[in-house]
Amino acid sequence: MSRFFSKKYSGLVPYTPGEQPKERKYIKLNTNESPFPPSELAQKMAAEAAKRLMLYPDPDCRELTATLSELIGVSSDEIVWTNGSDDVLNFAFMAFCDDEQPAIFPDITYGFYSVFAEANRIPYEMIPLNEDFTIPLDVFKQKKGTVFIANPNAPTGIALTVKEIEELLQSDPDRVVVIDEAYVDFGAESCIPLIRQYDNLLVTQTFSKSRSMAGARLGFAVGSKDLIADLHTIRYATNPYNINSMTMAAGIGVLQDEAYTWKNCVSIIENRGFASEELKKMGFEMTPSMANFIFVKHPEISGEALYTSLKEKGILVRYFNKPRISEYCRITIGSREEMNELLKQIQIVLEELL
Amino acid sequence: MSRFFSKKYSGLVPYTPGEQPKERKYIKLNTNESPFPPSELAQKMAAEAAKRLMLYPDPDCRELTATLSELIGVSSDEIVWTNGSDDVLNFAFMAFCDDEQPAIFPDITYGFYSVFAEANRIPYEMIPLNEDFTIPLDVFKQKKGTVFIANPNAPTGIALTVKEIEELLQSDPDRVVVIDEAYVDFGAESCIPLIRQYDNLLVTQTFSKSRSMAGARLGFAVGSKDLIADLHTIRYATNPYNINSMTMAAGIGVLQDEAYTWKNCVSIIENRGFASEELKKMGFEMTPSMANFIFVKHPEISGEALYTSLKEKGILVRYFNKPRISEYCRITIGSREEMNELLKQIQIVLEELL
Repeated sequence: MSRFFSKKYSGLVPYTPGEQPKERKYIKLNTNESPFPPSELAQKMAAEAAKRLMLYPDPDCRELTATLSELIGVSSDEIVWTNGSDDVLNFAFMAFCDDEQPAIFPDITYGFYSVFAEANRIPYEMIPLNEDFTIPLDVFKQKKGTVFIANPNAPTGIALTVKEIEELLQSDPDRVVVIDEAYVDFGAESCIPLIRQYDNLLVTQTFSKSRSMAGARLGFAVGSKDLIADLHTIRYATNPYNINSMTMAAGIGVLQDEAYTWKNCVSIIENRGFASEELKKMGFEMTPSMANFIFVKHPEISGEALYTSLKEKGILVRYFNKPRISEYCRITIGSREEMNELLKQIQIVLEELL
Repeated sequence: MSRFFSKKYSGLVPYTPGEQPKERKYIKLNTNESPFPPSELAQKMAAEAAKRLMLYPDPDCRELTATLSELIGVSSDEIVWTNGSDDVLNFAFMAFCDDEQPAIFPDITYGFYSVFAEANRIPYEMIPLNEDFTIPLDVFKQKKGTVFIANPNAPTGIALTVKEIEELLQSDPDRVVVIDEAYVDFGAESCIPLIRQYDNLLVTQTFSKSRSMAGARLGFAVGSKDLIADLHTIRYATNPYNINSMTMAAGIGVLQDEAYTWKNCVSIIENRGFASEELKKMGFEMTPSMANFIFVKHPEISGEALYTSLKEKGILVRYFNKPRISEYCRITIGSREEMNELLKQIQIVLEELL
């Protein structure tokens, strides 16, 4: 820290992303990336856009917005684009939280929520998940404050139903509920159809998971025109050209190639079922995941031991050294070949450690 | 504005970027873009990166950092990358300004500085430029607060010397001086060599102008390790994966193709001299610009009339409806063909309006 750093950030602890090691080739099952390459159309359109990089991108993202608008049936003024969905979540903390309207979210969820709150100096409360890692909706309904819920939740993969979220929206129409649907395409239900009915609902999604574009940084939020206008105000007051031309083009390409995305989602869902069943046979327990990862523990091996042993064997998974979940590992669902290799190596780990 | 928008932003007026019209093909001389396509190596490397978009980008930008580090002779922990240089300027307002340390900058400069201050609720003072649009350095030296100076300044194009900036750095070693060198490659002197001598100096640059990559969104700051560490803290607390893989690859490509960049800069400098001389012959006055634009006025035609007449003729220039500069237009220096067309159309405008 420099002697010039503003005191307002003196206690700020940044987010720690999953490892991106360069020193060795790993099977990467630690950051919930897709095992499938990006859509060929997306690749081609990005390469075309690279030829015209001397011009600024369209700050209104008109073509990308029109493409999504047609696909998901919301109007263009109900959409805002950001540099990954982290950015739109940060904007939502900025726009809809303050000293009078604190942020509330589960104690076990996407680790960035508390960092966003700290970075924006917003008071926040973390509501403990139930023992089975489900979200205690009744507690959320009774609390005052802007709600942030990942659905499915991370790192558990457990999803709420749209009906449950609707009840949460109704419990206090005077506060915003942000539903972070980063992982929704792997079997959970999206709340997007509710945005016209509830002006307090903001839904965020990302192109990093089901659309194989983590490297492109593209996220969006949909909500009522007024909520979206607020996020545009923040965007135009910080970085109006936040989406680069290549990402914008790739985004249009992948949206025009929906069949490819859905084929990949079906593979992930199948591989999740396969890996889960095999791991259960080996004695693992897990939460019922609707995401592209599973959250597993073995009654006789610590989460850290599993993480470390697999890393030695060339497989990266995510281990969180945190209360309540330190016995678990979060494992991204990859291709069938990757899952077979994972199962093979876990079998070896079990033989070594038990 | 929604009923949920935090009161802290109720008065926030976003930045207005230059027009990016779609309805008609214009000669675009309004947003200081390069007339030259991006480096072919940059294009090729971006297209290659598009094939691997399913993986997150390297949040530490190690390869890009190493490439720049070698080129400009600073070490890797003296560099931070952002999604365009707007982003690193915003980070600098966040990190180095607060109620005790207000921001100070010229009244006529990049219009985003006051927006960054407002967005971060930072007190700021705008110091009036001298009558000839030079920066009153003595006033800055006597004021307390974090200084933001564009060098060359926009929209005037007037540059300070490194010696003048050094005196400013010495005037108060306990405050940060941010030198925004977006336009430095067109003839002004960079302060980068001073960063080891002055731990209160932060220099920002962009790939949007001399490197023909406005569409890619790539900017950086260099400064002492401690200043850069502070900016990394902000980056990791808001958006650690802020540089997408394609932009990172294009950035490496263009840095490996320096001869192309410098050839283009020489062309712009030549075209600036040519267009300036021709416009002077037509009666225009202008500031001595060291940037890729000129700031011109005609004694008998208002800035607005020139802007409007040129737009009708298919040429976009930038007009600022602001006190002190409303008689001027800012005209980007393009290719020789574009300058010839500009001069031809201005000649017609003069005949029509005089």
